[in-house]
Amino acid sequence: MQLDHLIAFMRRRRSYLCVGLDTDPAKIPSFLRHEPDAVLTFNRAIIEATADHCVAYKPNLAFYEALGPKGWDILAQTIAYIPKTHLIIADAKRGDIGNTATMYAKAFFEHLGCDAVTVAPYMGRDSVEPFLAFEHKWAVVLALTSNSGSADFQQQLLQDGRPLYTEVLRQSATWAGPDRLMFVVGATKAQHIAEVRRIVPDHFLLVPGIGAQGGDLAEVSKYGLNQQGGLLVNASRSILYAADDHHFATAAKREAAILHDQMRTLWDQYEQATA
Amino acid sequence: MQLDHLIAFMRRRRSYLCVGLDTDPAKIPSFLRHEPDAVLTFNRAIIEATADHCVAYKPNLAFYEALGPKGWDILAQTIAYIPKTHLIIADAKRGDIGNTATMYAKAFFEHLGCDAVTVAPYMGRDSVEPFLAFEHKWAVVLALTSNSGSADFQQQLLQDGRPLYTEVLRQSATWAGPDRLMFVVGATKAQHIAEVRRIVPDHFLLVPGIGAQGGDLAEVSKYGLNQQGGLLVNASRSILYAADDHHFATAAKREAAILHDQMRTLWDQYEQATA
Repeated sequence: MQLDHLIAFMRRRRSYLCVGLDTDPAKIPSFLRHEPDAVLTFNRAIIEATADHCVAYKPNLAFYEALGPKGWDILAQTIAYIPKTHLIIADAKRGDIGNTATMYAKAFFEHLGCDAVTVAPYMGRDSVEPFLAFEHKWAVVLALTSNSGSADFQQQLLQDGRPLYTEVLRQSATWAGPDRLMFVVGATKAQHIAEVRRIVPDHFLLVPGIGAQGGDLAEVSKYGLNQQGGLLVNASRSILYAADDHHFATAAKREAAILHDQMRTLWDQYEQATA
Repeated sequence: MQLDHLIAFMRRRRSYLCVGLDTDPAKIPSFLRHEPDAVLTFNRAIIEATADHCVAYKPNLAFYEALGPKGWDILAQTIAYIPKTHLIIADAKRGDIGNTATMYAKAFFEHLGCDAVTVAPYMGRDSVEPFLAFEHKWAVVLALTSNSGSADFQQQLLQDGRPLYTEVLRQSATWAGPDRLMFVVGATKAQHIAEVRRIVPDHFLLVPGIGAQGGDLAEVSKYGLNQQGGLLVNASRSILYAADDHHFATAAKREAAILHDQMRTLWDQYEQATA
């Protein structure tokens, strides 16, 4: 997907909602659970129900790998069902070097047809660059995550007093522009999002942690939006498992619509404030 | 696999060789390349040829994922062919939290039957702990890797002047003992291995970077061995692609036997020096 197409689509729709396809066979409605293609049936219903409100989908690879070889087929068929207008982010958190990273990049970008893949930065530049070699594709580098373990290393202070995650942002932003690189920034620390925006004013931020993981959409939007939109806010469980019965898709649509409405208002407020 | 079984097997064999199954369909001998199950045929021949000399195998997940859904079948069949005596390390470099990490752990430990999986530490304790919940299984945490990018973040100095990777070792060694946790330490910096051994005297170290990636086996062994062995040294390309013809398996066996001989001698030297 081209960056300007993504920006134009988001502007038209006034949404920056990403729906996380973290489909757990044990959590889908019980009436579906014993169907042979339960996960795929569920995913298709969720995509149909939410496509009018979101601009991106983010399948979490672990949930498909846990299904064994058929998981890859289910993932491929799920991805094939996503409208071409929507960004597809493989949440894989890969990180390896050279040839291995290129193998992963090809698996996600070429075989599966994803637009973006999440990448861990611990191994450094040569573990991220292979993902940056593909036109109209993105590496989404983990900068600051929303789990408690983010304090263990990401927030360790370096010698000049800055936390490690700001050094990850500073260095990796020199490797590619917003057309190839995005960042994962956890939403549980809205004040951190303002700091992140100062370091990377132009790159897209992918913010997990709205909905089931907590996080305040208004705060995230105030600090995270930029003139291009520049923000993708993910919700998974609050949408996927909004109801546990035959009305799960309707309930998912309602949850997505609520977030979409809030985003419309917040985007308007941001544009008025920065006009 | 039980830790004491691994230690006893290594002692009997006087080997700490791990063979990396980074099987690239474009690099296997050309006469094999157009067979339908070329990668699996190649892997089986390599395992048969090297099993007498090594104590572990390390399939690199990227190479199997790049084959699409059939890659998982090939990986599962490759793993099924490895003798039960040998440790099986899924080189997957996963790192995610909670439920997602548990999904990955189950995929590797339960579905695929691996003994260990490599894990990236950037997301902190709650991204590693789900892998530590399985008896007789290991998380192999990336501490210091052998690529040039290891300088970007792993070797960043913290406020007290210590590099980040030593803090990763220090903290994560408190999460589990040598029965659940190992560390990846790159072999291109032998002086670093001595430093690592001071911080984690008892944990196993998995050292990539012997063979095609460079690194000095004598130096690594001198600083990395401990009273339990405590060391696994990986070689991939130098063994897998030792010959490009019908004799590839014989050539692979010869390369593995050379490393095995060196390890026997180095282990004897270590025991004499520390007796």
